[in-house]
Amino acid sequence: MLFQIVKSEIVSHLSYIVGSKNEAAVIDPRRDCQIYKDIARKWGARIKYIYETHRNEDYVIGSLELSNMTGSQIFHGIGLKWGYGETVKDNQEFSLGSLKIRALYTPGHSPESTSFAFYDTETEDQAIMVFTGDLIFVGDVGRTDFLGSKMTPLMSEKMYDSIIKRLLPLGESVIMFPAHGSGSVCGGKIKEREISTLGIEKATNPMLKLSKEDFISYKIAEQHEMPPYFKKMEEYNLKGPPILGNLPNPPPLKPSIFNDKIRKGAQIIDTRSPSAFGGAHIKDSYSLPPKRLSYAGWVLTYDRPILLVIENLEALDFAVQNLVRLGFDRIDGYLVGGFESWYKDGLVFDEVRLMSVQDLRQRIISQDDIAIIDVRRRSEWDEGHIEGSVHYYLGHLEKNVDKLSKQKPIVVICKTGNRSSFGASILLRKGFGKVHNCLGGIDAWNKSGFPLTK
Amino acid sequence: MLFQIVKSEIVSHLSYIVGSKNEAAVIDPRRDCQIYKDIARKWGARIKYIYETHRNEDYVIGSLELSNMTGSQIFHGIGLKWGYGETVKDNQEFSLGSLKIRALYTPGHSPESTSFAFYDTETEDQAIMVFTGDLIFVGDVGRTDFLGSKMTPLMSEKMYDSIIKRLLPLGESVIMFPAHGSGSVCGGKIKEREISTLGIEKATNPMLKLSKEDFISYKIAEQHEMPPYFKKMEEYNLKGPPILGNLPNPPPLKPSIFNDKIRKGAQIIDTRSPSAFGGAHIKDSYSLPPKRLSYAGWVLTYDRPILLVIENLEALDFAVQNLVRLGFDRIDGYLVGGFESWYKDGLVFDEVRLMSVQDLRQRIISQDDIAIIDVRRRSEWDEGHIEGSVHYYLGHLEKNVDKLSKQKPIVVICKTGNRSSFGASILLRKGFGKVHNCLGGIDAWNKSGFPLTK
Amino acid sequence: MLFQIVKSEIVSHLSYIVGSKNEAAVIDPRRDCQIYKDIARKWGARIKYIYETHRNEDYVIGSLELSNMTGSQIFHGIGLKWGYGETVKDNQEFSLGSLKIRALYTPGHSPESTSFAFYDTETEDQAIMVFTGDLIFVGDVGRTDFLGSKMTPLMSEKMYDSIIKRLLPLGESVIMFPAHGSGSVCGGKIKEREISTLGIEKATNPMLKLSKEDFISYKIAEQHEMPPYFKKMEEYNLKGPPILGNLPNPPPLKPSIFNDKIRKGAQIIDTRSPSAFGGAHIKDSYSLPPKRLSYAGWVLTYDRPILLVIENLEALDFAVQNLVRLGFDRIDGYLVGGFESWYKDGLVFDEVRLMSVQDLRQRIISQDDIAIIDVRRRSEWDEGHIEGSVHYYLGHLEKNVDKLSKQKPIVVICKTGNRSSFGASILLRKGFGKVHNCLGGIDAWNKSGFPLTK
Amino acid sequence: MLFQIVKSEIVSHLSYIVGSKNEAAVIDPRRDCQIYKDIARKWGARIKYIYETHRNEDYVIGSLELSNMTGSQIFHGIGLKWGYGETVKDNQEFSLGSLKIRALYTPGHSPESTSFAFYDTETEDQAIMVFTGDLIFVGDVGRTDFLGSKMTPLMSEKMYDSIIKRLLPLGESVIMFPAHGSGSVCGGKIKEREISTLGIEKATNPMLKLSKEDFISYKIAEQHEMPPYFKKMEEYNLKGPPILGNLPNPPPLKPSIFNDKIRKGAQIIDTRSPSAFGGAHIKDSYSLPPKRLSYAGWVLTYDRPILLVIENLEALDFAVQNLVRLGFDRIDGYLVGGFESWYKDGLVFDEVRLMSVQDLRQRIISQDDIAIIDVRRRSEWDEGHIEGSVHYYLGHLEKNVDKLSKQKPIVVICKTGNRSSFGASILLRKGFGKVHNCLGGIDAWNKSGFPLTK
Repeated sequence: MLFQIVKSEIVSHLSYIVGSKNEAAVIDPRRDCQIYKDIARKWGARIKYIYETHRNEDYVIGSLELSNMTGSQIFHGIGLKWGYGETVKDNQEFSLGSLKIRALYTPGHSPESTSFAFYDTETEDQAIMVFTGDLIFVGDVGRTDFLGSKMTPLMSEKMYDSIIKRLLPLGESVIMFPAHGSGSVCGGKIKEREISTLGIEKATNPMLKLSKEDFISYKIAEQHEMPPYFKKMEEYNLKGPPILGNLPNPPPLKPSIFNDKIRKGAQIIDTRSPSAFGGAHIKDSYSLPPKRLSYAGWVLTYDRPILLVIENLEALDFAVQNLVRLGFDRIDGYLVGGFESWYKDGLVFDEVRLMSVQDLRQRIISQDDIAIIDVRRRSEWDEGHIEGSVHYYLGHLEKNVDKLSKQKPIVVICKTGNRSSFGASILLRKGFGKVHNCLGGIDAWNKSGFPLTK
Repeated sequence: MLFQIVKSEIVSHLSYIVGSKNEAAVIDPRRDCQIYKDIARKWGARIKYIYETHRNEDYVIGSLELSNMTGSQIFHGIGLKWGYGETVKDNQEFSLGSLKIRALYTPGHSPESTSFAFYDTETEDQAIMVFTGDLIFVGDVGRTDFLGSKMTPLMSEKMYDSIIKRLLPLGESVIMFPAHGSGSVCGGKIKEREISTLGIEKATNPMLKLSKEDFISYKIAEQHEMPPYFKKMEEYNLKGPPILGNLPNPPPLKPSIFNDKIRKGAQIIDTRSPSAFGGAHIKDSYSLPPKRLSYAGWVLTYDRPILLVIENLEALDFAVQNLVRLGFDRIDGYLVGGFESWYKDGLVFDEVRLMSVQDLRQRIISQDDIAIIDVRRRSEWDEGHIEGSVHYYLGHLEKNVDKLSKQKPIVVICKTGNRSSFGASILLRKGFGKVHNCLGGIDAWNKSGFPLTK
Repeated sequence: MLFQIVKSEIVSHLSYIVGSKNEAAVIDPRRDCQIYKDIARKWGARIKYIYETHRNEDYVIGSLELSNMTGSQIFHGIGLKWGYGETVKDNQEFSLGSLKIRALYTPGHSPESTSFAFYDTETEDQAIMVFTGDLIFVGDVGRTDFLGSKMTPLMSEKMYDSIIKRLLPLGESVIMFPAHGSGSVCGGKIKEREISTLGIEKATNPMLKLSKEDFISYKIAEQHEMPPYFKKMEEYNLKGPPILGNLPNPPPLKPSIFNDKIRKGAQIIDTRSPSAFGGAHIKDSYSLPPKRLSYAGWVLTYDRPILLVIENLEALDFAVQNLVRLGFDRIDGYLVGGFESWYKDGLVFDEVRLMSVQDLRQRIISQDDIAIIDVRRRSEWDEGHIEGSVHYYLGHLEKNVDKLSKQKPIVVICKTGNRSSFGASILLRKGFGKVHNCLGGIDAWNKSGFPLTK
Repeated sequence: MLFQIVKSEIVSHLSYIVGSKNEAAVIDPRRDCQIYKDIARKWGARIKYIYETHRNEDYVIGSLELSNMTGSQIFHGIGLKWGYGETVKDNQEFSLGSLKIRALYTPGHSPESTSFAFYDTETEDQAIMVFTGDLIFVGDVGRTDFLGSKMTPLMSEKMYDSIIKRLLPLGESVIMFPAHGSGSVCGGKIKEREISTLGIEKATNPMLKLSKEDFISYKIAEQHEMPPYFKKMEEYNLKGPPILGNLPNPPPLKPSIFNDKIRKGAQIIDTRSPSAFGGAHIKDSYSLPPKRLSYAGWVLTYDRPILLVIENLEALDFAVQNLVRLGFDRIDGYLVGGFESWYKDGLVFDEVRLMSVQDLRQRIISQDDIAIIDVRRRSEWDEGHIEGSVHYYLGHLEKNVDKLSKQKPIVVICKTGNRSSFGASILLRKGFGKVHNCLGGIDAWNKSGFPLTK
């Protein structure tokens, strides 16, 4: 049997390819989908089915792209006016080699959410595994806020029922494969472990220990962020996104041409490390270290070209791949020779001063007149922050800059220094002069034994 | 969390690497073990522990080789006089990042067999998965015949108890990872599906539906083969095999030098397809198509060099890798330029006539005077064979050739044509002249709707 | 400076990429042209110019495909009504980083043939290297027969003048890079060594030692083959071939579906070795071992789909790549699981008996009634052949089968056994029953010390 | 024919592998020599000969390592007491497939320097190419100062004679392959173009336009640097360096363990970009950007372990490979998770302020009290430098720090910013506080149109 997890790190998206006897199925493919074809080819299978567990909000689904390559059939859930593929019926069954697949209508995360249970027909038709999409994760459940706060109670109730009445009856020994892992914006408490069973979740998932009422109340009280690019994703994933054929292949640009494009309005993403960005960078560029590239969805627009400052070709491929997953296909080029070629040409650069937690601590003790901006998620802030710091969630920083003073030094802080580098770059772009990034962030602060407040 | 299955196809051996927070453990590493190091390195972890579920009989364990590379600690079970590593106590616990590992003494397959259960300390110390070695497989259990038939009843009883009293109590929702998959000589009925839980096995594994008495009786009645190379494996795996450092790198040999080495007693393995071997091959070579390379353990000796006839460099690497897993390290070279270079030099070659099942059927109907030798395993033969054929298990063919007549044409048959190609090559080496390989074998015979008898 | 040779083995085509200071030029790109882009990207350059030395006859030029990927300008020679690109003037100069490129109008092989000389502006504007296309090769010169025998004298004269008056004046120390290496149909005596200078050629190239008159006479007397696919190449390379975007990605086909497509008229190419094809193959398939794949141009039609029987995925990629170079883009699939899956399904197969030179010699001595068909090129045949054999050039065999008797056994022979395997497959397709391939061919015959006649 | 250049970028070392008819020769192999074996294997050849053109001073020769892998014979020049290999006679000939190789005794760079000319026996025994080692480069000749200034006149004379009397007589059309390309410390004016012929050099190499007297005078007047590691190289390359077997495989180290090793005296190399090093780095580490890694030979000692701060695994491999080429085999580990893991753990870091040329220019105009240290080679300094700057060659900076004042800010400058980053890191290690690296260096200064003085 073929079974392989394909993980997309930045959005912590988990997709899967399963095969039996020369036939394969892919669950929730990503847009850069050559990988599924390569796996199937190597294993000697044709991709017969593509299943979508739900209309994704946080990345562009690759079903149409993959189907275009392979001729596979696409199936998704009941109730949306899909622009492509076919709608699956509840309990509809499929045959894949010696496997049987059953669609389970499991709304909650979204109205059309569907789970797919796989049975081994050679083993007494035993249910072996289930792909749960955003219904349930390892240690958490999916969001129920996408239809707006009015609908959250109803969606939460549906989710509870879907888990209790449709999913768990499959049996405790069934292995569970969700659509997201730890780090996703689609579930804040997902465990790092990417392997679980319905039994393990039943026993340990905190959400499954709640009564139905408590479950619904908990979900209503939850606070989630909704980056602006989600709108584009929803539109794409309903109607079908543009077909790429191949990934964009941005050309190498000399500094002078790169500079021309900046002047004409291109958006610059610098994926180098916070240390390098702090040391020197092109004015007006966004600092988006690889791990935090998905924050591009908060600030980039779809209608202007993107330029990349990257360390090497591997980083270029990584950036392109991840931007495309967010629908940002207009990548006009990268700075050839890296940032070095910029300053070798005598072009000016900017800096972000990097501050250690020891320095920050000292300045607080010395009562220096500095503003400390904490850009982490609300839930992280609530768990403990530096006394005297103020909270602006990173995604909301750009629209809140008017509330900040340009007079005094600003120290941006997050958990480790990546998101704060992005935050600092936003402030620089808005004309703030004395911006610092606290390298190490709250992690380093804690390690150093400095106090937090709640 | 890091989790990856490393499968060695020929012996259907499953090994695993698990990691948490920069620490990794490997379960039952194979001898060509660079792969574990590469995975750990890419993931950013050091290999801290190596666990052996038992002293393997069918391949050379890679623990010492890997430990030599990485400095990892090796642990194996109670009761053997190990020449390397440390003996683990029953219920001994280890810490690996946020995982806890507990050793479970589970004799049965061998006296020292040990299972390793992994718990997630961040999830209520929940047992997540268990590595069962040769105790239990997906759909089958391990062999209990290695200590000899007198001990089989006792070992079978121990196995039953280990499964029922030690393993199943971990809980139905625990995911199970055995040391072998479908196709292994260590368990005849292992399912193709490589993924299961204790609950799924409890519900569907035929062996777990038996009473203790029936379980023991069943195991006593089982018939298994024991290739001669197992002795070497047991010796190696107890004392510690020779350290390779790097895989052998056999040099390219011109036909004339290749031929010299043959004359001096080298053993020739030809891994080309049965079609190609049938068409033309070097006299006295063994036909061992890649999928059946482990049959080398029935005929090769450890004290004479091995020469390879392979199709391309990929096949060369494959052959070297797999021979080394069986302890055959003396690989003196390969025929450069492939078999083509042999006949281009005007060197003579031999053939095996290839017969279709249609031809074979016709000859039987015409009552031609031919001998049909079925070389499959006894259990396969018992499930149905061609009327008039005689059975010699492939592994025993060489020592039984005296029972066969050289006068009449022989057709060797197996399931598809790979093992029969090996069988045919054995007969040719022994001086039989009119040897045919039935391409397609019983599979093709069945597909053609021809009758079998039992 | 960037300099890399990109060699396409089957048609012995040499293309080049040269770069200086972030700018690159490609000379005579092949159609599977991702490789030039990858080289340029890794080196940090944009491909600025694509130069065609002439309208190629033996493969599809990749200029348009590459230009489509990279936006490079395409230049070719004077006098043809090109459907794409720009016409270069004689002595026109280009700047590429610190290099200067000068186009030299050098007709002879074709009316528009152009050479490109590269000068190093940082080294006294010294001519460094020249790309000569099919004007001159290492040890030979290009064909002059493409405009028909009437034009050969004139074209030969032009070629002589181009070499003597335009090329050699660049200087003896200039390094020379032609469009073909040893093995090409575009020059029979090209040396294996792919490196030369104008001085070395002047001193050693036998064609340059001839007087003008002798040169022309020699060229008029030459005999070259013209496979039917050349017509398609000329058409494509004048108007611009279809853009692929990506290489065709033939799907894996099960034997039953493969068989259906055969029945509907698909053409089957089997790239396995002559030994394997001899042993067993699908009826009506062409035996085209990788090294001889370009012979497909003699028998395939462009209007029917092609199916592939290949040994592994590497061989699949190789076949696809090489067929596409000949314009055969309609590749409908490959037999998944290899030829083994065919006979496992009980489908019938055919054989070609393989004969050693020893056997052949014996049969000749015994005066067996056999026909020996030598399918090598006329020039090879003229250098020596087996007494009693008859000559049909491989490319002409199909249309000459009526001249052969189906009654007596036929032995096809070439230099080593690859072309004769193709020849044997042609005969089998035409209903000949007793067809043998002489493995080892004239090479083995010679090595065995058997006599040839002239 | 096989011909491939293997270039080692940092030391601009050019090595070569040449093959004919299954036999190959390697000229001046590097120490990480698996690559030659892989090339030979892929091409189907055995490496028969290894030729050393001279005892190298700037890197560890890989002959012994490669011979150990492949059993090849090693040959080097006359007159040294070699600890391994064989001494070749002047005019000694070798056969390699259809090639003939002749050793030419060409002292000058070193007393035993030998060139190797390759002849094509299939082309009238024509000399095709010559491997010249450090005798002559493209656009320059080798150093003659290694035996000390007293011997320079004599060695220069020998060099002149070797070129004029032994090399050039091979003929202008012979292609020339030297041991170094542009950027090597072994020849300051080597051209970027790596391809030349004896004729091109005769016509354009400035050194060949000098009379013998002028040649010698020029060489006597030349100034070259001699990094301390050269001593170790000479020792290794005479006696034979330690055999590695495999490249060192430094383990991933957590920050705490990394820090322990620093405290115990390990030397830290940080290969991140000058921007990143400037932004933040571990105290006391050397900034050695990849392109300038060979400067490690000026400061590292062989008796203390080395630790690496690298951006990613690719950079790790690069660093290891290049350190090993300089004989630095004791690499104890790398910081796992990159520099981010350091500051996440709350460990302190240091910075180097990065200054643009615009800022620097402004400070000079404002007559700020700053010291500008130019660390380029003497010859670069002589061609033009910033007025008011002082010159300390980078290699001599560490021993000259006492001459610098710690009171005023220091700006270190080189050509682009890499060497000055190393210079700045040396000063920081020596306790200087206000150290700046001028990003862009003299290149940017020039591009900005600012004035230089001589």
